[in-house]
Amino acid sequence: MNIPQTSYPRVVIIGGGFGGIALAKKLAKQEMQVVLLDKHNYHTFQPLLYQVSTGGLEPDSIAYPIRKILSKYPNFYFRLALVEAIDTAKKKVNTDIGELKYDYLVLATGSRTNFFGNKEIEANSMIMKTVPEALNLRSLILENFEEALLTDSLDEQDALMNFVIVGAGPTGVELAGALAEIKKGILPKDYPDLDTRRAQINIVQSGDTILKGMSDKASIKAEDFLEELGVNVWKNTRVIGYDGDMVTTTTDLTFRTATLIWAAGVHGETVHGLDAKELLVPGNRVKVNQYNQVTGFNDIFAIGDVACMVTPDMPNGHLMVAQVALQQGAHLGDNLLRLIEKKGSMKPFAYHDKGTMATIGRNKAVVDLPRYKFQGFFAWFVWMFVHLFFLIGFRNRAVVFINWVYNYVRFDREARLIIRPYKKPKMKVNTMKQKKA
Amino acid sequence: MNIPQTSYPRVVIIGGGFGGIALAKKLAKQEMQVVLLDKHNYHTFQPLLYQVSTGGLEPDSIAYPIRKILSKYPNFYFRLALVEAIDTAKKKVNTDIGELKYDYLVLATGSRTNFFGNKEIEANSMIMKTVPEALNLRSLILENFEEALLTDSLDEQDALMNFVIVGAGPTGVELAGALAEIKKGILPKDYPDLDTRRAQINIVQSGDTILKGMSDKASIKAEDFLEELGVNVWKNTRVIGYDGDMVTTTTDLTFRTATLIWAAGVHGETVHGLDAKELLVPGNRVKVNQYNQVTGFNDIFAIGDVACMVTPDMPNGHLMVAQVALQQGAHLGDNLLRLIEKKGSMKPFAYHDKGTMATIGRNKAVVDLPRYKFQGFFAWFVWMFVHLFFLIGFRNRAVVFINWVYNYVRFDREARLIIRPYKKPKMKVNTMKQKKA
Repeated sequence: MNIPQTSYPRVVIIGGGFGGIALAKKLAKQEMQVVLLDKHNYHTFQPLLYQVSTGGLEPDSIAYPIRKILSKYPNFYFRLALVEAIDTAKKKVNTDIGELKYDYLVLATGSRTNFFGNKEIEANSMIMKTVPEALNLRSLILENFEEALLTDSLDEQDALMNFVIVGAGPTGVELAGALAEIKKGILPKDYPDLDTRRAQINIVQSGDTILKGMSDKASIKAEDFLEELGVNVWKNTRVIGYDGDMVTTTTDLTFRTATLIWAAGVHGETVHGLDAKELLVPGNRVKVNQYNQVTGFNDIFAIGDVACMVTPDMPNGHLMVAQVALQQGAHLGDNLLRLIEKKGSMKPFAYHDKGTMATIGRNKAVVDLPRYKFQGFFAWFVWMFVHLFFLIGFRNRAVVFINWVYNYVRFDREARLIIRPYKKPKMKVNTMKQKKA
Repeated sequence: MNIPQTSYPRVVIIGGGFGGIALAKKLAKQEMQVVLLDKHNYHTFQPLLYQVSTGGLEPDSIAYPIRKILSKYPNFYFRLALVEAIDTAKKKVNTDIGELKYDYLVLATGSRTNFFGNKEIEANSMIMKTVPEALNLRSLILENFEEALLTDSLDEQDALMNFVIVGAGPTGVELAGALAEIKKGILPKDYPDLDTRRAQINIVQSGDTILKGMSDKASIKAEDFLEELGVNVWKNTRVIGYDGDMVTTTTDLTFRTATLIWAAGVHGETVHGLDAKELLVPGNRVKVNQYNQVTGFNDIFAIGDVACMVTPDMPNGHLMVAQVALQQGAHLGDNLLRLIEKKGSMKPFAYHDKGTMATIGRNKAVVDLPRYKFQGFFAWFVWMFVHLFFLIGFRNRAVVFINWVYNYVRFDREARLIIRPYKKPKMKVNTMKQKKA
């Protein structure tokens, strides 16, 4: 890789998510060379991906070019690269565009969807971790309604208008709420020749609570909100199969649907060379000490979702959320400075819980702050404010704000565009057509 | 196709461009059933596609869902369909989602890129007639610079940073200007480790004037603007070959480039069943009389780019521009009403030239109005105002406006995102890598 060798130590960061960017910003103005590698040339604001899937926001307003974030730092280098392996003996990263030596390496690769080994579900379901995936889901949702118009069979129509979301974490809950609002506000106008009242939004959760990890109050209120919006909430039910047509569960419950959205869990996105069994904890995360150092290495660190900092009071590490990644990125920045410039010893990471929140729909959100917990209109307002604040870039904020005001006033979501059609590997409707033939 | 048979006559419109939408709006509130077919579920504001390609606007803000435009009209039906053929004897349209009877048929299919039979250029060049095509070009431009970083060969770098635009109509000129501004304002910041001063923007024109069809004053001034921006303007030169690496022309001029953008011409997008030789004029357009009726049919009409209304003072028909399509759509709406409701005879179409304009860059545009011709800052201001006015939808206007203000104040274009990587069928760089091996 064409990166000049300087007298500064080189820190290679893999991943331009919340953690990687926070770290790079700390280091890039110091006397070190910072190289950030990512397979996308942009940072994705993942918490709003569900709004892209549901036509509420345009994709470009929640993505931000990584080069632009760090363009003012002369010691910062970005490369669009897919990391293939780490050679810890030779202190090298191998990528699809060549290899790169490092003095210090930071894994900030985040997490990927966990199908718990179910290949059938993996092949047939939709996920929403990247912008292209969110756009695929947007296309599929719209294609389903266009297809539903083409059949007289109510069974086929129902399957096309049935949405099954697996997992009632923030992503699943927020998506379910958005779909319910589309059903109510947009479908009757866009598809007057279709009985869209028959559209169903189902959310299936293996445990007995939604938004697990939030307070009981938030969880109960969120469920109320979902039910108010007409979403079917199925608890204590685990989805075990989906052939592209029929969803089976651990109970008698089954669904016929063209669209299963899998939001049931993630696990760490490890990299070959740092994925030895002894380095990992359950959930495929890399075990780190309280300085985010990977076990057995002084020069390799991991932050954010991919890292698991096991402490006596946190046997499972921190939650895999943006706040932890942001704080670990910034904290590691300070620690690396201390380490590299020999300014005292590193300080242990301490997480400052700033609270969690989720929005269910118009005027409906739940917020758990360390001291206050509240729900409803004010929570929804706080949710919007916080998300606008954390978005990168003035233009993105302005565009998101305009969209939100417009959508709110007009009960609308105008980005319902099938820009790149999505073809499911195994379409339910095709199956049915074959059956008919 | 599942469209209810009513007592109203059925008008089938093929194409949701400027002409098709203008017509549908006129007819949908009348006592007739209007069915609009399009292969996209959105209307594209083509004049701004070049800003999508160059990261200045997000794709969703120049696209608008067709269903939404016409959702308030109960007699309006939209189907996402690819029209395969017209059976004029049986008065039927055949599509990929089934067939549909019509009482009246309107061809509003627009135009497609004309490669004048050169298959090699067609296979290797980029075009910009649809949103996905504009996004492909955006990805390729950005990928080129990422790739240029990976090589030490100045020749390879130059080829990756060389842009050749063929055709100096409004599309070519506006794209050249935008690329020149990116070179000046963005590349040095985004790629400090690349000598982006070596990037070249070339525009090649077969005739001896750019913006043919506009006034001499506009043409000369536009050329001055391009040269001010550092664009190389090559006139009296016809591109005759491009193998994905080397561009050859009718003169000694050749270019090595990874990116050839073909904006050298369009021809009518005809449909099988209405493409008999005797129906067409050169340019693959369907000959229509002054009521937009296709020769030999009382019930079939064509409007916009695909139609050629030959009159004694217009032997080549009208220009293939949005204004003609808009006016013909609205005019045909009135004529169809007269014809169907037998309210007098149809009136001949008369084009009201409202002028033409093109923008070259920041504060640089040329405007030809019937009475006034002006260039520079005020022309640029008028250009923006007119384009905002013709955009469909308040949200799109607001988002485009915000982007323009932001880009103007900050000398920036933030949508420089490679959302879906574009892989050229035959990448120059791959060729070189093979040569090296």
